[in-house]
Amino acid sequence: MRAHMEEMGREARRAAIVLREAPAAQRSAAIRAAAKHVRARRDEILAANGEDVAAATAMVDRLMLDEGRLEAMAAGVEAVASLPDPVGEEIARWQRPNGLDIARIRTPIGVIGMIYESRPNVTADAAAICLRSGNAVILRAGSEALRSALAIHAAIAAGLAEAGLPAGCVQIVASADREAVGLMLEGLDGAIDLLIPRGGKSLVELVARDARVPMLGHLEGVCHTYVHRSADPDMAAAIVANAKLRRVTVCGATETLLIDAEAAPALLPRIAEALAGCELRGDAAARAIVPMKAARESDWHEEYLAPILAIRTVAGLDEAVSHIARYGTGHTEAIVAEDREAAEQFLGRVDSAILLWNASTQFADGGEFGFGAEIGIATGKLHARGPVGPEQLTSFKYVVRGEGQVRPG
Amino acid sequence: MRAHMEEMGREARRAAIVLREAPAAQRSAAIRAAAKHVRARRDEILAANGEDVAAATAMVDRLMLDEGRLEAMAAGVEAVASLPDPVGEEIARWQRPNGLDIARIRTPIGVIGMIYESRPNVTADAAAICLRSGNAVILRAGSEALRSALAIHAAIAAGLAEAGLPAGCVQIVASADREAVGLMLEGLDGAIDLLIPRGGKSLVELVARDARVPMLGHLEGVCHTYVHRSADPDMAAAIVANAKLRRVTVCGATETLLIDAEAAPALLPRIAEALAGCELRGDAAARAIVPMKAARESDWHEEYLAPILAIRTVAGLDEAVSHIARYGTGHTEAIVAEDREAAEQFLGRVDSAILLWNASTQFADGGEFGFGAEIGIATGKLHARGPVGPEQLTSFKYVVRGEGQVRPG
Repeated sequence: MRAHMEEMGREARRAAIVLREAPAAQRSAAIRAAAKHVRARRDEILAANGEDVAAATAMVDRLMLDEGRLEAMAAGVEAVASLPDPVGEEIARWQRPNGLDIARIRTPIGVIGMIYESRPNVTADAAAICLRSGNAVILRAGSEALRSALAIHAAIAAGLAEAGLPAGCVQIVASADREAVGLMLEGLDGAIDLLIPRGGKSLVELVARDARVPMLGHLEGVCHTYVHRSADPDMAAAIVANAKLRRVTVCGATETLLIDAEAAPALLPRIAEALAGCELRGDAAARAIVPMKAARESDWHEEYLAPILAIRTVAGLDEAVSHIARYGTGHTEAIVAEDREAAEQFLGRVDSAILLWNASTQFADGGEFGFGAEIGIATGKLHARGPVGPEQLTSFKYVVRGEGQVRPG
Repeated sequence: MRAHMEEMGREARRAAIVLREAPAAQRSAAIRAAAKHVRARRDEILAANGEDVAAATAMVDRLMLDEGRLEAMAAGVEAVASLPDPVGEEIARWQRPNGLDIARIRTPIGVIGMIYESRPNVTADAAAICLRSGNAVILRAGSEALRSALAIHAAIAAGLAEAGLPAGCVQIVASADREAVGLMLEGLDGAIDLLIPRGGKSLVELVARDARVPMLGHLEGVCHTYVHRSADPDMAAAIVANAKLRRVTVCGATETLLIDAEAAPALLPRIAEALAGCELRGDAAARAIVPMKAARESDWHEEYLAPILAIRTVAGLDEAVSHIARYGTGHTEAIVAEDREAAEQFLGRVDSAILLWNASTQFADGGEFGFGAEIGIATGKLHARGPVGPEQLTSFKYVVRGEGQVRPG
């Protein structure tokens, strides 16, 4: 990026020399030609703008609370209050031949730093889950959600005071100053034990690059649904439609459909029908069956968070697995298949946090897993993977009880 | 450190100006006076040298293999071969009300980067434990142990070849070039999933500061044994002597003894007797009971890895817990007490990886925990804490089996 920007600078400086000497008429001609090309490229420009609008609409959707969502948020917090408390739980206990009794006991981690963007409800979810797991939390909301986050935080602070807990349990950065993020990445002088970034790719990448304390990464979800040739057609159509369209802005939404080439002629029209209203972008084989836009290489990498689905035909399981290994983000993938052996191969070979057989990728959610609540889906492989609920925000210690044992030799 | 070094430079430059103009006689006088003071400070210099020699001796002890240790290393590797394989293990499985069947399945992490120093047997332990947990490993031994590590690696490579596994499963950096460490800290272009530094404080701090990939820290062990006033005197003496002296160079060796002031007159002489041959450094109250050197503030921070024990009298449990919170490294602490309530308070309130009641801190070891083997004791609170064996080097994924479920709403 730096090299690219510097090259842009050099290019501009060279052009400025040419431009300074170019006659007015030549410059006028350039301006008029530009206008002409704007009209000529109408379709491309409107399509690109459509994508920007879709992205902004997705942002508005993430940002917006209404009475229903607010009640859901409050109910979610209440649900966390009723969850079993993980702190002090005996995870395992065993005896050694020398009589030592060893127990593994769940403990809080300490202080969590939560950096998020436009979902204001993260304020309430994170506060509740951290209280449940015995951790203090420092919240830093994105500037676009700051007013909402502060208002939600004030409610939580009132709850803390009512219960006699110090305000330091749940704090929020009250400004949109980017410097706060930098200071949190440095760990606030050893105060922060774990950072959780939740938001877009650029935020998570920033944290991954600059954090001086451990982090639980929540990367984007380029999730796949693979329709195997043995799939039941009705089930395939229902699952793909739900996986893509139930809510298009969640990270567990399917972004790419992989479908066995030999079954595509029979299955794809039915699936496309179930996806009414969704833009489809397919490879040549898919387009030969159902008319749709052509998918480009970049489509396989895209987390649309919009009613757009990339479709690729594959020769079979091996190719589906390779495609996911190459383009996936390790989040969630599903296979639709009646063939149990094929399904088990898929579940075993794909290395993502969540693998589903004959179910929608939209089940990638802590609540749906029975965790009560979550503050994200971790895509890294360390500490926690998949939905991060109260239990995932704990550490543990070993408690060893003896009767005077000393270690020989 | 940088500021300190730069200040040293400025100081030297200022002094050089003075020195350039100082008469020869003044410089001769300074030299003679220096010799005089060397003699006068004989005791301090020899004591400091004694500490250096003790540290170097500890290094030689960590470095040295003999037939016995080699056989123990080979037997350790064989023991790992017989351990249950963690990969594919079903850690948990449950059903949701909607019929989804969710299983949590253990998976390898991927590629481990192991950076160690003078213990050559880490080469064999790390290779065996990584193979058991399905991870490839890149080993980087300290220059002082490089010849031993390469010889051990050659044996492991022969084993891989005999079993038909690629040599890439266990690789070792064949040079002592420090640049290799820097490259590993950057993650080798995304190849390394997890770094494990194992060695002295400066190595672990370097990795913690510069690593661009997650790490499993193995900090020094400033371990405490706290003798409560209710302790059985014989048990206290036996446990303290074993915790300190069984092997002084292991990270689970006790470095500081905390003892209740009211019981010290009765207990401390007996404990000191059991510690024959160990240098004691105590606070004023301890010295009033048993003659010993005076402990300085720095002694409470010290990981001696030598037959030296710091001794502090405390008013009771609260002061013991505070001392550990302030000076401990979160590794391993023990309480010796007959009073069950006091012991449970200690076990609950101290936040270290391993807490023991009436047992020696030298039990801080994966083998003693029944893990079969370990490549260190993690002192961080994320992913793994305490002994790191094969199970601790795994991740997991969720496998969800359905019958066509889609997510409502």
